[in-house]
Amino acid sequence: MGGDRAPEAVIAGAEMVRARHGNVGFIMVGDEARLAPLMKGYPELSRVCELRHCDAVVGPDERPSAALRNRRPTSMRVAIQAVRDGEAAGIVSAGNTGALMALAKMTLRMLAGIHRPAIASIFPTRRGRTVMLDLGANLECTPDNLVQFAVMGEVFARTVLDIEKPSVGLLNVGIEHNKGNETVREAARLLQSGSLPIEFHGFVEGNDIVAGTVDVVVTDGFTGNVALKTAEGTARLFVDFLREAIDQSLMARIGYLLARGALKNFRDRIDPRLYNGGVFLGLNGITIKSHGSADEVGFANALGFAVEMARHGFNDKVIEELNRWHDGRSTEAQVAAG
Amino acid sequence: MGGDRAPEAVIAGAEMVRARHGNVGFIMVGDEARLAPLMKGYPELSRVCELRHCDAVVGPDERPSAALRNRRPTSMRVAIQAVRDGEAAGIVSAGNTGALMALAKMTLRMLAGIHRPAIASIFPTRRGRTVMLDLGANLECTPDNLVQFAVMGEVFARTVLDIEKPSVGLLNVGIEHNKGNETVREAARLLQSGSLPIEFHGFVEGNDIVAGTVDVVVTDGFTGNVALKTAEGTARLFVDFLREAIDQSLMARIGYLLARGALKNFRDRIDPRLYNGGVFLGLNGITIKSHGSADEVGFANALGFAVEMARHGFNDKVIEELNRWHDGRSTEAQVAAG
Repeated sequence: MGGDRAPEAVIAGAEMVRARHGNVGFIMVGDEARLAPLMKGYPELSRVCELRHCDAVVGPDERPSAALRNRRPTSMRVAIQAVRDGEAAGIVSAGNTGALMALAKMTLRMLAGIHRPAIASIFPTRRGRTVMLDLGANLECTPDNLVQFAVMGEVFARTVLDIEKPSVGLLNVGIEHNKGNETVREAARLLQSGSLPIEFHGFVEGNDIVAGTVDVVVTDGFTGNVALKTAEGTARLFVDFLREAIDQSLMARIGYLLARGALKNFRDRIDPRLYNGGVFLGLNGITIKSHGSADEVGFANALGFAVEMARHGFNDKVIEELNRWHDGRSTEAQVAAG
Repeated sequence: MGGDRAPEAVIAGAEMVRARHGNVGFIMVGDEARLAPLMKGYPELSRVCELRHCDAVVGPDERPSAALRNRRPTSMRVAIQAVRDGEAAGIVSAGNTGALMALAKMTLRMLAGIHRPAIASIFPTRRGRTVMLDLGANLECTPDNLVQFAVMGEVFARTVLDIEKPSVGLLNVGIEHNKGNETVREAARLLQSGSLPIEFHGFVEGNDIVAGTVDVVVTDGFTGNVALKTAEGTARLFVDFLREAIDQSLMARIGYLLARGALKNFRDRIDPRLYNGGVFLGLNGITIKSHGSADEVGFANALGFAVEMARHGFNDKVIEELNRWHDGRSTEAQVAAG
């Protein structure tokens, strides 16, 4: 029930995912009086969809602490509980971000071996797609946090983005090994140690994010959040400047009409709907936040992430990789001690 | 002598500034055998220009510590000494950034009341131009550092960008007062306290930088450096994607030709040469770093910043504003104590 276009965009997005991915079911949590009539338009989706009635909703401006305290069964809470109870593999919501993180963290708990959750998103790049994390869940991070983010980002790129051997970069103010603060330098040392089965590229800079220098960009939530919004803002400014330039002359408008077909390709490459979905990593259950303004194409993209993560056993793979790391670490310690 | 196009672009840029600003003189430091023949092409510039011969140069990859240790009179060192000795109001160099900061800091010392230098640059925005600092001089900042950056940024926007009452924003992950880490929250409290004659807007986010929400964006050097490079990378990606889309069809290329006049306006608004110049603030002498690849238009822009700062007595105005702040603070303390 969350977001600006619920429940219509949610249902239409689910139908797109059903048609695209097949063999997937949904528990649609919300006001049955509104959902049921809409579902009538989707006979095939209805066959794989269970409606779960819920009156209450988390308000868009409700504080996370209030959403936690208030025990009423909101659509968000009930949907997360379905994941906790093993009825659903994951939850996708276009509602209140802070409340979703707080409720999911409390209800699902952390994944074994992960100390802090992270928010990941994918970016269009010159080479394809890059995943970046954290985008705001943790403003201050330890080197260990960053290493855990690297593991989760690498598994995400491997499973969801289907990149065979993803390269991982640590965001910094320069690429030389002596650059940056103590935290990123120590995280780089840990990632270089070789006990992780990760293709660690080293440090990357802000321009490397969309250049696609690496498949996974790891950073703390403060820097990642600023970088994400700076990239979005710059993209928007460009589109606006371009539109204003074209609008100012008749010749330019005619030129634009001629180029329109080719520009569709340009628009498709930067279509934010194809990058919609903030993935909450590190929780004991797949949790994805769709942008509140997402239409069905955008919502289907976020849902698609959840389907791919579930199919590939994302969380199991993260645990496996972390265990290999810890084993490698204790072996190293033994060697050092012996 | 620094940068990819020295000394030609430096001399041609100086000529542009002479013609534009008038009543300005230059000390051109470098290899006289190369400079003197070039100067012959600029009779008017030659009249206001003193050549100061110097054999040695700081190499582009020389480490700042090596540039400091090595006592030989490089063109960079001699130019900075001219500022220290009161012969020049400021130094502009397209050479090694780290060496310029280290040599300028050691030779010119810090401005009274400023604890750490900052690097500032201007950005094109929807509303005009915005100055952001720090872009990498200080990776970790105290609340006091950020307040001092705010003062310097505000004076820069007022004097060089000619904005009557510049608004100042603190870069954060959200605009609500409880967002962010302890450092930005404490800096916001200090800026809000009212003892500074600054129009403090509050927190801003990454997308606000190019939206032009405020005239001055204040942040630590780690975040600022990443944001700057992310914006540059995103802008470059857009231009590349656009070019590729247009190149792929004849119709689009014809369309582009028709729109070319209008697109010139677009290109002018984002021309990086008009934003060239990393301004080192907080030193006891105007110090500006031009991009190494800058042509004469870019170098003239960086030189223009120095001229405007000198004309407006930039550093005096910063000291004045800081004194007012400290007076306000001690008055507040007296009131609190009394």
